Amino acid sequence: MTARYARIAAELRDAITRGGYAVGAQLPSEAELAARFAVSRGTVRQAVAVLAAEGLVGSRQGARRIVLGRERSQSFAELHSFAQWARAAGHRAGGRVLAQRRRGASAVEAARLALRPGEPVLSVLRLRSLEGEPVLLERTVYAGWIAPAVERLDADCESVTRALHDGAGLVLAYGEHFIDAVAAGTEDARLLAVRRGSPLLRQRRVTTTPEGRPVEWSDDRYRAGSVTFSIRNSVDANPLVRQVGDLRPAR
Amino acid sequence: MTARYARIAAELRDAITRGGYAVGAQLPSEAELAARFAVSRGTVRQAVAVLAAEGLVGSRQGARRIVLGRERSQSFAELHSFAQWARAAGHRAGGRVLAQRRRGASAVEAARLALRPGEPVLSVLRLRSLEGEPVLLERTVYAGWIAPAVERLDADCESVTRALHDGAGLVLAYGEHFIDAVAAGTEDARLLAVRRGSPLLRQRRVTTTPEGRPVEWSDDRYRAGSVTFSIRNSVDANPLVRQVGDLRPAR
Repeated sequence: MTARYARIAAELRDAITRGGYAVGAQLPSEAELAARFAVSRGTVRQAVAVLAAEGLVGSRQGARRIVLGRERSQSFAELHSFAQWARAAGHRAGGRVLAQRRRGASAVEAARLALRPGEPVLSVLRLRSLEGEPVLLERTVYAGWIAPAVERLDADCESVTRALHDGAGLVLAYGEHFIDAVAAGTEDARLLAVRRGSPLLRQRRVTTTPEGRPVEWSDDRYRAGSVTFSIRNSVDANPLVRQVGDLRPAR
Repeated sequence: MTARYARIAAELRDAITRGGYAVGAQLPSEAELAARFAVSRGTVRQAVAVLAAEGLVGSRQGARRIVLGRERSQSFAELHSFAQWARAAGHRAGGRVLAQRRRGASAVEAARLALRPGEPVLSVLRLRSLEGEPVLLERTVYAGWIAPAVERLDADCESVTRALHDGAGLVLAYGEHFIDAVAAGTEDARLLAVRRGSPLLRQRRVTTTPEGRPVEWSDDRYRAGSVTFSIRNSVDANPLVRQVGDLRPAR
């Protein structure tokens, strides 16, 4: 069941992205929206806070908020599924498991996956392509409890996220992402068909269930020029953090 | 004046980051928080939505929310001010303007800054250092209306954000960031003391006033290994977008 404020946020978001409100126009007041949707002003405020966090509307100016943008953010599912994302963007995605094995978690993996070092994990090396060109090399470590479900997948399973949802009831709800640039190593260069030392966009990420249980910790490397990440932030909602050096020690 | 919900969010955030609530613990219910702060449940919901957007708390489980993390996100001001960020992280920051001139806006700059092509902008090349080492090359284009205030700054002004706030009353409220990896060009390599073609983390960003008026459009390049960006997202709040190729045309 979707919360009422989330349904109202979805309806307003649709109106904004379809151009029902021009950029720079004012949203109706909380009182007007509360009357229109027959909900409390608190519920309206929650809905509008979601749109503000997405950067679609700005802070309140008097009683109203200004529409700031019409670009719809990707859904969380699209972000975590290469296949769903590529399809939504109109591209042909491919993927293939190159290597897969069970082993014990390293100290970093254990910290990220809330395990003890040495506890079993499943390590998977996957190459992803767009329009047949290799663009992304994923080195993913899955917590042991989800490993059997991952091992049941086909080597060329298109959407792992979708398959784990349909096959194992797995729901992903939170992500933490660390983005930096690295030079291609020997294996990176060979599999991504670039020169050794050339720039790669690296995204390391941990994804958890709605209860906060870590599912996977992944090191994803994109060929330079293949992908850009964009982030909206504001004084009200700033999920973007800059940190010195490489990754800080795990929490 | 800070909104009531923002003050309550700040108080709860402090309690979480100081360890007052363990990771995995439940926040008090909305009713309990409303009673404690003597505000409506709508106000509590708004405050908690902010913490959810920051990734500190999860979705509701029954009447309560789970604490997911204790890492405080940087404030928006810290993110936009190299100097404030470095100081907060305990580092010694330096900065110097290497070149500065007025010229007409290119088509891309005009689109990003909501100007017409050819309208006057101020182009600034700034080199930033940490502990005396060059780490960041900023190529920033300021909209003409803020140019005089930027020109009045010292060439080695430590915090441009702070100086423009104190000197010109400028408040930054929204940002959009595009992050990818690029190979160092000739000028990048010379100024950042790296080899030509070596990986750089690039952040392009536009920043606006609370009214949504664009202030600056910047191409910032970091030496690989010097800085990592991190982003929390969730099914409720997903400000992170992945896109194919380089930057899509400006809105």
